[in-house]
Amino acid sequence: MDDWVQPADPAPEPRSVATRFGPDPQRLDEFARLLAGSRDPALVFGPGVDRSGGWASAVALAERLAAPVWSAPAPERAAFPEDHPHFRGVLPFAIGPLAETLSGHDTVLVVGAPVFRYYPYVPGEHLPPGTRLLHVTDDPDEIARAPVGDSLLGDPGLTLSALLDLVPQADRTPPTPRATPAAPEVTAPLSADALFAALAAHWPADGVLVQESPSNLTALRRQLRISRPASYFTMASGGLGYGLPAAVGVALAERDTGRGRPVVAVIGDGSFHYSVQALWTAARLSLPVVVVVPVNQQYAILKAFAELKKTPGVPGLDLPGLDITAIAAGYGCATEVVETPDQLGAALAAGLRANRPTVLPVPISTDVPSIL
Amino acid sequence: MDDWVQPADPAPEPRSVATRFGPDPQRLDEFARLLAGSRDPALVFGPGVDRSGGWASAVALAERLAAPVWSAPAPERAAFPEDHPHFRGVLPFAIGPLAETLSGHDTVLVVGAPVFRYYPYVPGEHLPPGTRLLHVTDDPDEIARAPVGDSLLGDPGLTLSALLDLVPQADRTPPTPRATPAAPEVTAPLSADALFAALAAHWPADGVLVQESPSNLTALRRQLRISRPASYFTMASGGLGYGLPAAVGVALAERDTGRGRPVVAVIGDGSFHYSVQALWTAARLSLPVVVVVPVNQQYAILKAFAELKKTPGVPGLDLPGLDITAIAAGYGCATEVVETPDQLGAALAAGLRANRPTVLPVPISTDVPSIL
Amino acid sequence: MDDWVQPADPAPEPRSVATRFGPDPQRLDEFARLLAGSRDPALVFGPGVDRSGGWASAVALAERLAAPVWSAPAPERAAFPEDHPHFRGVLPFAIGPLAETLSGHDTVLVVGAPVFRYYPYVPGEHLPPGTRLLHVTDDPDEIARAPVGDSLLGDPGLTLSALLDLVPQADRTPPTPRATPAAPEVTAPLSADALFAALAAHWPADGVLVQESPSNLTALRRQLRISRPASYFTMASGGLGYGLPAAVGVALAERDTGRGRPVVAVIGDGSFHYSVQALWTAARLSLPVVVVVPVNQQYAILKAFAELKKTPGVPGLDLPGLDITAIAAGYGCATEVVETPDQLGAALAAGLRANRPTVLPVPISTDVPSIL
Amino acid sequence: MDDWVQPADPAPEPRSVATRFGPDPQRLDEFARLLAGSRDPALVFGPGVDRSGGWASAVALAERLAAPVWSAPAPERAAFPEDHPHFRGVLPFAIGPLAETLSGHDTVLVVGAPVFRYYPYVPGEHLPPGTRLLHVTDDPDEIARAPVGDSLLGDPGLTLSALLDLVPQADRTPPTPRATPAAPEVTAPLSADALFAALAAHWPADGVLVQESPSNLTALRRQLRISRPASYFTMASGGLGYGLPAAVGVALAERDTGRGRPVVAVIGDGSFHYSVQALWTAARLSLPVVVVVPVNQQYAILKAFAELKKTPGVPGLDLPGLDITAIAAGYGCATEVVETPDQLGAALAAGLRANRPTVLPVPISTDVPSIL
Repeated sequence: MDDWVQPADPAPEPRSVATRFGPDPQRLDEFARLLAGSRDPALVFGPGVDRSGGWASAVALAERLAAPVWSAPAPERAAFPEDHPHFRGVLPFAIGPLAETLSGHDTVLVVGAPVFRYYPYVPGEHLPPGTRLLHVTDDPDEIARAPVGDSLLGDPGLTLSALLDLVPQADRTPPTPRATPAAPEVTAPLSADALFAALAAHWPADGVLVQESPSNLTALRRQLRISRPASYFTMASGGLGYGLPAAVGVALAERDTGRGRPVVAVIGDGSFHYSVQALWTAARLSLPVVVVVPVNQQYAILKAFAELKKTPGVPGLDLPGLDITAIAAGYGCATEVVETPDQLGAALAAGLRANRPTVLPVPISTDVPSIL
Repeated sequence: MDDWVQPADPAPEPRSVATRFGPDPQRLDEFARLLAGSRDPALVFGPGVDRSGGWASAVALAERLAAPVWSAPAPERAAFPEDHPHFRGVLPFAIGPLAETLSGHDTVLVVGAPVFRYYPYVPGEHLPPGTRLLHVTDDPDEIARAPVGDSLLGDPGLTLSALLDLVPQADRTPPTPRATPAAPEVTAPLSADALFAALAAHWPADGVLVQESPSNLTALRRQLRISRPASYFTMASGGLGYGLPAAVGVALAERDTGRGRPVVAVIGDGSFHYSVQALWTAARLSLPVVVVVPVNQQYAILKAFAELKKTPGVPGLDLPGLDITAIAAGYGCATEVVETPDQLGAALAAGLRANRPTVLPVPISTDVPSIL
Repeated sequence: MDDWVQPADPAPEPRSVATRFGPDPQRLDEFARLLAGSRDPALVFGPGVDRSGGWASAVALAERLAAPVWSAPAPERAAFPEDHPHFRGVLPFAIGPLAETLSGHDTVLVVGAPVFRYYPYVPGEHLPPGTRLLHVTDDPDEIARAPVGDSLLGDPGLTLSALLDLVPQADRTPPTPRATPAAPEVTAPLSADALFAALAAHWPADGVLVQESPSNLTALRRQLRISRPASYFTMASGGLGYGLPAAVGVALAERDTGRGRPVVAVIGDGSFHYSVQALWTAARLSLPVVVVVPVNQQYAILKAFAELKKTPGVPGLDLPGLDITAIAAGYGCATEVVETPDQLGAALAAGLRANRPTVLPVPISTDVPSIL
Repeated sequence: MDDWVQPADPAPEPRSVATRFGPDPQRLDEFARLLAGSRDPALVFGPGVDRSGGWASAVALAERLAAPVWSAPAPERAAFPEDHPHFRGVLPFAIGPLAETLSGHDTVLVVGAPVFRYYPYVPGEHLPPGTRLLHVTDDPDEIARAPVGDSLLGDPGLTLSALLDLVPQADRTPPTPRATPAAPEVTAPLSADALFAALAAHWPADGVLVQESPSNLTALRRQLRISRPASYFTMASGGLGYGLPAAVGVALAERDTGRGRPVVAVIGDGSFHYSVQALWTAARLSLPVVVVVPVNQQYAILKAFAELKKTPGVPGLDLPGLDITAIAAGYGCATEVVETPDQLGAALAAGLRANRPTVLPVPISTDVPSIL
């Protein structure tokens, strides 16, 4: 019954392989000339910019071109400092509204994103009339799928850096900064905006946000502006179940690499259960991750979708009877129900100092936000 | 934004299609002649017999041939009354031991199962020397994969029924019944055998068992004998995460069809978490399913596997710190920790009368059983 | 450099597996009752009847039901004696015309064929209004794809034979025989009909026909009626390149099995070139196959298709400058250009007595026949 | 029956997409430093160099490094002037012999090829001991499959050109030129070497060679040295049937682009038949392609393989009875059997001036060359 065979040969030496590649210089020249000659260019930066370490080049290019910057729609990473005066927000993830947002720009440069990631179908043209789209990505499949635009295949960071060598300083008034969001009213229960305004107020300087709360995402991104690289993570597209284990993994990486940044997750009370078992791993590993759970007891993004599609009253979208406190405790987490901004600040600070995960359910308003 | 299109045509009329097919009569004749002429045939019945409604024919054939009956290895259903005097138990799921078990039989008829489902690799011949294997299944892929034997393609129930028309009564002493299992000692915590002896003692007459507790499976099947069709369900092969939602689904079907049989699940404390969210569905639907959770705080089947492979001490196989009571309560279940046989009887009876799911964690011995 | 490893173990004993299966008896009963109670049933037999040795049962069922018989559309085998008084011909391979052909029959039984194989798209209902379709096949994929009808899964031959045990003799006037085709006029060059009338006149008693001449198929089947099992072969559907090597393979099988039937192929002058190399194999093996090549120097079936679709003048459909005589001789065949019926008779007789393949190009009229 | 639907929208504007990409500058620097610091580097250029227009850069790099150059094994294109003093020939397509050939070089740079394409299995190490391999390709799958070496992902031409900016001139004696092949003896029938020496002697200045004659390939490449880009085409790996239609396609492209280079194919008398129908296309298009067919009436490469594997006498490898002249004429080609060098020269010149294809069968010695 000795059925185990020793491998005869030693393992071969590890090979190293390139993990990135640069742009075709000729096509890069064309893109640079088109940008330099553009009357009013717009920039759209996507997750590939963050993955390739391209924040500094992205900022430099935006300033060189005096151009407004949007985030690509439904991004799984942040690609640009959201408190930068050029930043205009995240593009809508629907055909018609996205094109309207870009209206008036003769050239749009998209870097490190698909063209484009849409969620609800809202008819329209893919681009405003007369707008030219230039596309930079290191994913040939994204190029093959793009319905409009001319594409360049290359690492986003390398390509941005190479563009900077070719594009002259624009002589054009830079965009005016966005307004700071008005302080939301504090109600009981809290609105999503009030919750996230409180989160922003108590946000740790170098915090990492992992989120999976689709219906609250607009409020979250309105209130909490990401300003550092590699600080925002969510799923690409809309598959639920990624956020909670991702937060545990990020917290583990921050601790084990010694980088030590605090990690905060915002996970909807529906999303929370897809991979709830990840909490046990966090507890066994004594990870100080804080999980804020906005509790609206419903599958609100689908209710919002149903409203857009004029099919209200879809059954099966209510989620009552889930005792998040008991479940989180059952998997070994500290837990506290949070109802006010101050309570959130205290609980957040305590959780980030703890040697185990903390789950903070926060009852919020059950108003269903618009999907767009 | 009116982007919903009415279908132009009415739905076509539903078609009906055959869902079963019978044996080739010529091959059936050959099989019947080989069985009739066999000196000492053995019968192996598998899940396909249960799926095709073939219990009565299986019993009749066993008695006609005066032959011993085994269950196919690692079955996802029971195919024969396990308290019948001809029943010998479940075949081992390893090559060598399985062939040894069948030693001495000149013919083996396998119906409604692959040839064979193995789990640990234990070398040996697939059959004892000189043994002929006849194989009946309605799955051509099972035929293609079988390493030994001659195969007949046909619905197991139809084929058994057709065989009965062709096989004469054997003039041979029928097998002696198996011994009743000795009553296990009651310890604290309970052994797996003592737990399942108690479960058997309090088993409801027409109960349905859904199980997913691999390391305790041998003890469970030793103590609790399935005697009715469509009363035992588990995953085919060893993929975890099926048992708990399957139990909820069976309970829903029993209630909604009006058949009304009581449903008891035995789910290991590791298996429990794969699809733990199913408990919420059971609670929302007010299903009276009882989930018995043998708690040994480890991934015991892999420890048993590691011992067979002489690689003890594999890391990551302990499962401490899981508060099953809190988690089950968090999803809306009644729950009670059970420590004695009597307590199990009372809790089981109460749970089956309740209008919601009941989870019963039972601490058991942490001894690791042998995998074979 | 001794890199060849001897196999350690002897080859395992060969296994035998069932290659056919019977009908579900319950569904068979339903079909039998529906047929027995039908006012005016029609039978459609397909290639599966021939493959499963079901000609005798097919004839007996047609006579039992006093029902007309069609061949399924675009069949790769003949399934019924085409000189039988019940035989009505091959169904059209287009939706609307096929349903029109079956008009008036309350029940249609299709055995051993897909429901249905279509080629050009001609709109219409799949069945006449009020007609019920019963479908017998041993191919579950054919069942899954059928747009209409109720299906039974079973070997066509076994199922026909089992139906005969259940269906009583109908008390109904049997169909009148088809008219014999009028003798076509002999022109120069020959029309396709005149060529095939000559072929029929000189056809060897137990000849096997392999054909691949799509545009001439209607004329061929009109003039030459297949009356014995396993005597007609072509590709299923319309993929060219099968016919010539198939004829060589059939000729080899007839010789090597000792069955010794004469083999005649009819291969269009376009089809001829797809796998022209097969001629060399026939020559090397000294096979007495005769290949009749109707030469119209065009891809006529696509011209017919283009006419149906009202897109005449499609380029690339003419095939001039192909010297079939030279090419066939280059691969080792006897060859003779045939221009008259008598010449065909003599050349055919000589070719079937020869010890090598014979290719007979026959210039025919370039009129493009209708596709339907 | 009006079943054609007009497209509602005009076709979208065509998009342009990048078809090449450059190297990661950091990895390029590492490669440049390793090459600059190498004691005795070797260069292996493959088809990707030709495809990416990199001949000039390849020559410049070879001279910069004073390094010997091999062709990658079994290339489908030529990547370097084979009459250049640095060129050493084509690497053997077997593991052991290939490594032996590179013995003594501390660094091997492979550009535009897999590492490596092997045909017969001859055991050995993939590289000489202590040799480092650097690999440049634009095919990530080639990188994933390579058993040894460090890989850079980038267009071969762009990468060679970028390397030239980074690698200094080596202070090292350049390799000595290869000897000119001795003039082979002229026999009757001709040897393969004598045939190809004659072909080389009469080769048109800017001729394009398309070949598919595996057993004669070594002799062909020994006698006829490719010295210009985009002038040699064959199949990648060993799939037969590509050469003859490829030659027709190249000839069509040369004529229709106005580039007008003469095209000569060398197609073995076995390979000739795989896609023999291509000759008709060439004839219909009046293309002046010349097809030289070395006729040895056998499948010689497999005989050579059988000898390497010590399994002589494999049946089915003789190819008698193929009248290439008749077949080529049947498809509309001019044709002449060639038996002497002078006759080849005259026939080649005439064929390249003709307005149709010419096929020149040349009986050659039936000696089977070694596969390595």
